[in-house]
Amino acid sequence: MIEGKQIIGFELKAGGDVLWQSTNPATGEKIADFRSATPAEIEEAATKAASAFLVYRKKSGFEKADFLDAIAGEMSAISDELLAICMAETALLKVNLTIELNRTINQLKMFGNLLREGSWLDARIETAEPERLPRPKPDVRFMHIGLGPVLVFGSSNFPFAFSTAGGDTASALAAGCPVIVKAHPAHPATGHMVAQAILRAAQKTGVPDGVFSHLFDNGLSVAQALVVHPAIKAVGFTGSTKGGKALYDMAVRRDEPIPVYAEMGSSNPVFVLPEIAKNEAENFAKGFASSVSVSVGQLCTNPGILLYEKSQASEGFTNKLQQEFQQTVGGVMLAPNIANAYNTGVEHRAAHPGVEVISKGQTTEGLNVGAPVLFKTDSTAFMADATLAEEIFGPESIVVEANSKEEIFNIARNLHGHLTATIHGTPADLEAYRELIDILELKVGRIIINGFPTGVDVSSAMVHGGPFPATSDSRATSVGTAAIFRFTRPVAYQNMPDALLPEELQNANPLNIWRRINGAMDQGKVE
Amino acid sequence: MIEGKQIIGFELKAGGDVLWQSTNPATGEKIADFRSATPAEIEEAATKAASAFLVYRKKSGFEKADFLDAIAGEMSAISDELLAICMAETALLKVNLTIELNRTINQLKMFGNLLREGSWLDARIETAEPERLPRPKPDVRFMHIGLGPVLVFGSSNFPFAFSTAGGDTASALAAGCPVIVKAHPAHPATGHMVAQAILRAAQKTGVPDGVFSHLFDNGLSVAQALVVHPAIKAVGFTGSTKGGKALYDMAVRRDEPIPVYAEMGSSNPVFVLPEIAKNEAENFAKGFASSVSVSVGQLCTNPGILLYEKSQASEGFTNKLQQEFQQTVGGVMLAPNIANAYNTGVEHRAAHPGVEVISKGQTTEGLNVGAPVLFKTDSTAFMADATLAEEIFGPESIVVEANSKEEIFNIARNLHGHLTATIHGTPADLEAYRELIDILELKVGRIIINGFPTGVDVSSAMVHGGPFPATSDSRATSVGTAAIFRFTRPVAYQNMPDALLPEELQNANPLNIWRRINGAMDQGKVE
Repeated sequence: MIEGKQIIGFELKAGGDVLWQSTNPATGEKIADFRSATPAEIEEAATKAASAFLVYRKKSGFEKADFLDAIAGEMSAISDELLAICMAETALLKVNLTIELNRTINQLKMFGNLLREGSWLDARIETAEPERLPRPKPDVRFMHIGLGPVLVFGSSNFPFAFSTAGGDTASALAAGCPVIVKAHPAHPATGHMVAQAILRAAQKTGVPDGVFSHLFDNGLSVAQALVVHPAIKAVGFTGSTKGGKALYDMAVRRDEPIPVYAEMGSSNPVFVLPEIAKNEAENFAKGFASSVSVSVGQLCTNPGILLYEKSQASEGFTNKLQQEFQQTVGGVMLAPNIANAYNTGVEHRAAHPGVEVISKGQTTEGLNVGAPVLFKTDSTAFMADATLAEEIFGPESIVVEANSKEEIFNIARNLHGHLTATIHGTPADLEAYRELIDILELKVGRIIINGFPTGVDVSSAMVHGGPFPATSDSRATSVGTAAIFRFTRPVAYQNMPDALLPEELQNANPLNIWRRINGAMDQGKVE
Repeated sequence: MIEGKQIIGFELKAGGDVLWQSTNPATGEKIADFRSATPAEIEEAATKAASAFLVYRKKSGFEKADFLDAIAGEMSAISDELLAICMAETALLKVNLTIELNRTINQLKMFGNLLREGSWLDARIETAEPERLPRPKPDVRFMHIGLGPVLVFGSSNFPFAFSTAGGDTASALAAGCPVIVKAHPAHPATGHMVAQAILRAAQKTGVPDGVFSHLFDNGLSVAQALVVHPAIKAVGFTGSTKGGKALYDMAVRRDEPIPVYAEMGSSNPVFVLPEIAKNEAENFAKGFASSVSVSVGQLCTNPGILLYEKSQASEGFTNKLQQEFQQTVGGVMLAPNIANAYNTGVEHRAAHPGVEVISKGQTTEGLNVGAPVLFKTDSTAFMADATLAEEIFGPESIVVEANSKEEIFNIARNLHGHLTATIHGTPADLEAYRELIDILELKVGRIIINGFPTGVDVSSAMVHGGPFPATSDSRATSVGTAAIFRFTRPVAYQNMPDALLPEELQNANPLNIWRRINGAMDQGKVE
């Protein structure tokens, strides 16, 4: 059996006493041995990251882009092996993992392109006016720089896209920040293979020892030591509300508080407006059932609440939902604790006096299986018990039947923060419910019309974030190019001689980037 | 004697029992009566702000700009009265207050111009590609929206620029957020006069009741009630480390944590490189003495630490500093507690065994006076006692003589966060000390070459911020147009019909703003 090792900059170590295994959740078979990182290994990763930052941050955008591209290339070169080990560790389907791996590779390249294009820096130049009264105007120039080493937690449910070389790592490296990943113990062998690809890319592209480290832990030691470590300047996390909030609480109590970007729970409410419920029930129900059950419901954007208004058409609409939901198929979940939490959560909700189970998907046999469940409640019960709006991580959703449009608006007004909200409506529906969009804008990071929230597109315009408790910081997105700003801060240079300025701010604009010169967008030189 | 009232949206109230006065710090004369806001008044301001947000945030950028311009106009119209009452309350000089008032008025207009120009929104458009494989690309559009009602604390030292209608208020209103100001008790009559100008502007421009409220308190009730109030979504503060950190600690422990932008202490180190110390001692010493003592040293960017290398020229350099510093003049400080804290802090530092007083400015007679003091220590003592790097708010600075360039670098590496760092050097000096710039970039929000940190210019490129403990959030600036991002978050619209999109994101680009279309800067329509 292979043994995973901590990757600490350019060195591999495995000095720990705590030995554990990664397992195939479908069979219980052991896949590989791992040792939790020791305090000395943790300290070494932090120290190396702090030193590497001083060198790495001064590399040009082109050099950092080359590093990101090299990681993408190293991952592409071993994609078959990556998919094989990941399927064994996670029980996710090859078709979905292939999409996720490609998305992860493209995401690395996207950040490379962002660095080469350069306008992300928000470079701003105010030129001097020595004659200005009552005081001369100084020359002041502004751009973003990296915060320092970033601690990234691999997520359970996205072994590629939100793990070792996922969006947090890619955006932090793009920002000029070294990264220490705490690998998720549900798929450590996948993480280790990706981390070795990053190590090869680092050595080939000449970034310094310590820009990337990858630590294993099946407990809390790495998290507890690094979140409060003075070398760490920000944290990226995707996972449970409890886990994310615990990291946040540690980080804000440090002597030097640091930002924590925790993407936590979200039930992603879906609103079905009357004409859709009446005329498009079957189409909607098919899409909805698929969005709830894809990847055994283990997606942050899984639509966990479905709301509509009671009407003459409601019964037919509910019947279609029930029928389509019966066609869904459950499967092996990512890990025993996740399957247990899902099945316990579903049982608990089924026992709620105001809730009934109106449809079940097909079950499969075997270990760690989760089956799709569709609950139903009414608006009174839903409004009376906030736990009914909470996510149960897995392939379930709850249908909420409201008595009026005003009740729909009230429920929307009372939602806490979610990653997404979705509205299905005809043009006439949307016009009649226009206020709903205004309400939901304040509740979520992304509003989807006539689509489904799963399948987050990675682009310059994506927001994967939202008000608390969807995330710990609504000002940020963890997907898309704007994710880079989680790990940067602006710095200004006043009256600095041109040759001492970063190239991005020099008069001649040698990088040919868009800048804001005396307040106006400009891609030229400073005259 | 006039009596100040709480301004709660469009209503004036003064129901409280706790009566207190504003006083002239130079004479002790009472200027006006104030009552601390009652719990009911505080609650009403919060409730009104939450309601007003829903209406105000949907006003166009042009409408919000008109409101900001109207505030500027109302303030201009009463500038003589404002200066008169402010001079009486703060003992600041008319020349400086005039500059500050103009800066405050121009700052409001600057944010108005920013809203009209529109590119600040960081609007991003990704157009659909239905044929993309393996999954269609959705249409996704991104822009910034306001967070919600903002609590702003007036500062003691900038009665205009960082108080009732100062940078926090202007940037929050520009972001679409209602503002509740807790006026500083050292200049409440000034605040009240400014608040009434805002009230007139609000009524003239048709913004909703509750977009602005202005509360008095000479204790902690308003702060404690509002920082934890669910209606408040962010906090802006300029003041002491203790005060700012206390607000931060309350805000991060809320059920829904919110961002706190506290600009706290900073000693703004100044590095004098060898050729300047040798050849430009007199010029430098004049500028330095003036920067330390202007406004009786009561500026966030007051240069409180001066570092240089021991050399043959050191003695001459130190002599010049002493001589010029003797020409400085102290004066009445903003309030009795500030004068007491300064005089106590200076006494305490003078008693430090490793510190000597090498020069004193001239004292004036009377109440609440602070006199300029120049301390000197060596690098060993400075490195051994972190309190020597702490700000004493007022006209003092400490000269640190180091033994070598490497010692200068080490001191710089060991600095905690400050708002600014300044380097005085000839071109040859700067080339020889290039590494110092790299070190300081990680310690401050702004680096100044051959200038002085006081006199913060308000422009698109300014950063008035910096790593902890200079501020509670290094990702932000409280001066300049980028200050608006403290009070916004991004939201994305997926597959939203054009007519339902905000105008900023519509295909036709009716506002003619710069946007990022499929990743590239573009001021045109979406084709």
